[in-house]
Amino acid sequence: MKFRIVFLGFGTVAQGLARILVRKAGVLRKTYGFEFEAVAVSDTVKGSVLNNRGLDLGKILGTVEQGGTLNDYPGGVKGLSSLDTLERADATTLVEATWTNLKDGEPGLTHVKTALKLGLHVVTTNKGPIALAYHELAALAQRKRRHLRFEGTVMSGTPAISLVKEALIGSTVKSIRGILNGTTNHILTEMESGKSYADTLRTAQELGYAEADPTGDVEAWDPTAKIVILANVLMAGRIKLSEVPREGITKITQADVDAARRDGKRIKLVAKAFRENDEVKAEVVPERLPMTDILAHVSGVLNAITVSTDVQPDVTVVGPGAGGDSAGYALLSDMLAINRALGTR
Amino acid sequence: MKFRIVFLGFGTVAQGLARILVRKAGVLRKTYGFEFEAVAVSDTVKGSVLNNRGLDLGKILGTVEQGGTLNDYPGGVKGLSSLDTLERADATTLVEATWTNLKDGEPGLTHVKTALKLGLHVVTTNKGPIALAYHELAALAQRKRRHLRFEGTVMSGTPAISLVKEALIGSTVKSIRGILNGTTNHILTEMESGKSYADTLRTAQELGYAEADPTGDVEAWDPTAKIVILANVLMAGRIKLSEVPREGITKITQADVDAARRDGKRIKLVAKAFRENDEVKAEVVPERLPMTDILAHVSGVLNAITVSTDVQPDVTVVGPGAGGDSAGYALLSDMLAINRALGTR
Repeated sequence: MKFRIVFLGFGTVAQGLARILVRKAGVLRKTYGFEFEAVAVSDTVKGSVLNNRGLDLGKILGTVEQGGTLNDYPGGVKGLSSLDTLERADATTLVEATWTNLKDGEPGLTHVKTALKLGLHVVTTNKGPIALAYHELAALAQRKRRHLRFEGTVMSGTPAISLVKEALIGSTVKSIRGILNGTTNHILTEMESGKSYADTLRTAQELGYAEADPTGDVEAWDPTAKIVILANVLMAGRIKLSEVPREGITKITQADVDAARRDGKRIKLVAKAFRENDEVKAEVVPERLPMTDILAHVSGVLNAITVSTDVQPDVTVVGPGAGGDSAGYALLSDMLAINRALGTR
Repeated sequence: MKFRIVFLGFGTVAQGLARILVRKAGVLRKTYGFEFEAVAVSDTVKGSVLNNRGLDLGKILGTVEQGGTLNDYPGGVKGLSSLDTLERADATTLVEATWTNLKDGEPGLTHVKTALKLGLHVVTTNKGPIALAYHELAALAQRKRRHLRFEGTVMSGTPAISLVKEALIGSTVKSIRGILNGTTNHILTEMESGKSYADTLRTAQELGYAEADPTGDVEAWDPTAKIVILANVLMAGRIKLSEVPREGITKITQADVDAARRDGKRIKLVAKAFRENDEVKAEVVPERLPMTDILAHVSGVLNAITVSTDVQPDVTVVGPGAGGDSAGYALLSDMLAINRALGTR
């Protein structure tokens, strides 16, 4: 199958994917038999363009990277809404990379549902639809015999979901513990070296690590969404985001950090999924980790998960949870996994 | 396809696989459509038994765990050599778990070659054939359209090869750095807390971590074989085991360990594969790692690799490199990957 791609959302993440696709088209064809063509791109800020005879992805990237909009791209149908784009595109695959909304998942949720109903495979980095409606979407995908993959929703291009589903195939997950938010981990790491919470947050905002409204990070909505995804996808949990015990780092003081250090420990915001009385549960709370815990040494904007299974003791994976083209790469890894499942090669 | 299995070598590793297969048969069938039957088991110490109508793996395990031999198993053909077993077995898959021989790879190398020539898939934990003859064996497997997998040769059940080939699909590996030998890492960790090299080695031997002849570990043959496997398999290297610069830990003194600690560093035996002038190279030498390197915090018998790729910055995986049924699980993960590739489900 040739992947005929609709991009909904064309910000940093989707552009990262586009850059990788353009650069690696030859090797992807040769190594994996993976072939693709972009047929539509739609973005609330940059406009939209559709051409079922194919778009020049390199040219689109160039236009956008130079500050232009999709209206500047020669030819094609302009100005369609995201849903009209989906309806009119002769596509096999949706790349959904609009912003995460943890309240109702929109507009991503409708994008994903519509695409699956239309018979498209979906790859997404959007945490909203997956954290809020995974089981519904997975059932829809199965009914339509289409693939829904979302490696980049947790730890970006660092493998978390595929680590368990593919590399740890056949194992049953007993628990997962992780550091799943780079902003809060960066703040805690800086506080270790004596910098204040407020200063560090401000610097992180200036550097673009942290949002202008940091609530999603410091009150732990972001890592909570991620542990819900891991629990529901990898442990067959039925957890609702709103019901997860959740405590951020806003109450952590310099005195707390110093006291932990004096005890030979480090405070980390730990997201956990575990089984209790045959039920899968999750929580996100700051913990004092001993230095013998590898998670205590996951510093700065790195993320990590430790997975415990029935057949293999703790396996930990550590890597960047954001930045560069990492999330774009996650989308590529999802498409290559679909390609492999379809038996193209 | 039903996996009709020949076991060559039925020591700890193969017994670990057998235990998992017996315990998880139901869930493996249900979740992955994976079905199996043991048709032959051959071991230089425990004897051999073949029955093409199927063996009761639970009964074989029970016999062996109680100190019996395969001659005590009721029925079947007894006393066949490993090669006669392969010839006469009506099998689809060889589980090769005989001892590692890094000089000429035997008897594993002949087992693997013979099985592939006979049209069997092969899964193995035996480092010898893969470290010495990977490209030849891979070419043979491809010619015969059979699968050859060997996840357990590096880091046991902790994913290393499948981490890159599956979870990091589509990426090009630039370099790999790892701690790939538990015995030497355990000795170095103990030396950090002031214990002597000799005492620690003796204790490790008593506990069964280290061999009676520890040369393979302390002179770094074992981690060198593993980095050669990673370099040749994941980076398309053409490295010969005998040509890899290799230095063990026998020259590391307590003074070296203490001096490193005073500089805020830790000595680790680091195995590396990297590209230099378009050529893939490898080496294994003790290094003083700064505490900012996550590998500095991989303690005791844990193993780890850090993989750097073109699309994703450093990803590190940490986990046990031996012990329990971990290597047995690696063999299962290989068979499930073959099952998936064959499209059974």
